[in-house]
Amino acid sequence: MNKLLIVGTVAFDAIETPFGKTDKILGGAATFIGLSASFFDVDSAIVSVVGEDFPQEYLDLLSDRGIDISGIEIVKGGKTFFWSGRYHNDLNSRDTLVTELNVLADFQPKVPVGYQDADVVMLGNLHPMVQISVLDQMTEKPKLVVLDTMNFWMDCALPELHQVMKRVDVITINDEEARQLSGEYSLVKAAAKIHTMGPKYVVIKKGEHGALLFQGKEIFFAPALPLEEVFDPTGAGDTFAGGFSGFIAQSENISFGNMKNAIIHGSNLASFCVEKFGTERMLVLEKEEVYDRLKQFRALTQFDIELE
Amino acid sequence: MNKLLIVGTVAFDAIETPFGKTDKILGGAATFIGLSASFFDVDSAIVSVVGEDFPQEYLDLLSDRGIDISGIEIVKGGKTFFWSGRYHNDLNSRDTLVTELNVLADFQPKVPVGYQDADVVMLGNLHPMVQISVLDQMTEKPKLVVLDTMNFWMDCALPELHQVMKRVDVITINDEEARQLSGEYSLVKAAAKIHTMGPKYVVIKKGEHGALLFQGKEIFFAPALPLEEVFDPTGAGDTFAGGFSGFIAQSENISFGNMKNAIIHGSNLASFCVEKFGTERMLVLEKEEVYDRLKQFRALTQFDIELE
Repeated sequence: MNKLLIVGTVAFDAIETPFGKTDKILGGAATFIGLSASFFDVDSAIVSVVGEDFPQEYLDLLSDRGIDISGIEIVKGGKTFFWSGRYHNDLNSRDTLVTELNVLADFQPKVPVGYQDADVVMLGNLHPMVQISVLDQMTEKPKLVVLDTMNFWMDCALPELHQVMKRVDVITINDEEARQLSGEYSLVKAAAKIHTMGPKYVVIKKGEHGALLFQGKEIFFAPALPLEEVFDPTGAGDTFAGGFSGFIAQSENISFGNMKNAIIHGSNLASFCVEKFGTERMLVLEKEEVYDRLKQFRALTQFDIELE
Repeated sequence: MNKLLIVGTVAFDAIETPFGKTDKILGGAATFIGLSASFFDVDSAIVSVVGEDFPQEYLDLLSDRGIDISGIEIVKGGKTFFWSGRYHNDLNSRDTLVTELNVLADFQPKVPVGYQDADVVMLGNLHPMVQISVLDQMTEKPKLVVLDTMNFWMDCALPELHQVMKRVDVITINDEEARQLSGEYSLVKAAAKIHTMGPKYVVIKKGEHGALLFQGKEIFFAPALPLEEVFDPTGAGDTFAGGFSGFIAQSENISFGNMKNAIIHGSNLASFCVEKFGTERMLVLEKEEVYDRLKQFRALTQFDIELE
């Protein structure tokens, strides 16, 4: 089986939506990416850090899904990264209420020896210097490196972000971030500028409005599945990234045509994530449900106009 | 050839966008619908009204494209409907600067005898009572009636709007209007409620975010083509409706599968409309360009995940 290396946060989240609120629950970019990628035939490992307060049962949830957690450092006496946020009524925007970096402040990632030759590396949202450190530890050039990042790093670590962007094949960011990074309002122009910063493939996530994949002049679009109710968007972008990178790692095919399929798989898995709080839905999701919803994606998007 | 009957405004528009402004130019819902539908093999006629100030050359532009304009009444001494608007920087929202109803205030539509048995009726945005009057003049039940409307009629003629909705097969409205009409935020729930008001098919237009087609539990989605620059969105929704109804009239097939194709044709034509001011782009558009861009739509949306 091919190997997928995931770096990102493993964390506590506390979430408020118009539908309710949670206490501290399992969260973090690497958690969502790992759970999502576990729906593919791939060996995966998470590189992250937690405090001594992090419950063993949460770690078990990950290893039960076949994820190698030997790269998750547990800091004695340390406290786990904690994020709390409140979503507005439209669920498209949110306020961050609390960010406690805790053990994340001094995080030095250590890639397990068995994953220093991973086929695909998924750099989840973290400080660009941490992402670079992971790439520096690879003994073989991965077939594909995927970078997820956010506006926070554009504001406070832009030179480092540019450094890591030069070393990745794919970047995934949302539409506002693409505009901020490029200075262009048109997403077509934004993607063209971001190409020149390094990534050959640019994925722009538009939340409920779907996702765009750019490679030069080629464009592919996947809608988000129209849902009766979006319950909690937390982790949807990471779940998308996990489905994308997990499928690519499984299929070992990095053609543009196969990236289209990867975008569909990512969108499909993300459509489940938002149905419940945090990781709740992903933890009970069955492969059969995933397969059935792929058929819905096909019905949603495929047409049969005959063209030469 | 099948017959398409179009009712709607034929008007003067004055438009301001971040890219420039126009004097009074050719505009109006029926104008855009007619130009768009003229790309299909269909006999079409416009029912509308203009003043004596309306240039013969504008009428010629329509009849040169094979559109029957005998149903466009010219009111002696009257002034043509005039709309002026200014788009905001994102081109997604606009302020109306001027609305002069003029001859539209007392408009009594008269359907030409040769079109009282039209196969498809496209009710462009107008007072619901005008739309009802057109339906009352049909001597044969059309194969398909399509209704376009807007929030203005929800605010000031809701009972009449509900009356016309009971008599149509398809309604096309934008996302905010769907929410207003249904009182539901989720577009899936909104479409379900709008179904109960009459239309079997509900089309929700999301501008740059594409369009959704609902029939009961079935959903189809067509993206807007990602463009480097949207120059002027005026008429894009009407151009979409013209492509949709023109294709349906040509193909004489009102299955859900063929409606999907109609949505793609509508989106395709609308992608040209926004490239220049008003009708400028549509007036020089060639069939070959339309065909080539359909291929782009296919590349943009079609994938090949194998499913049983």
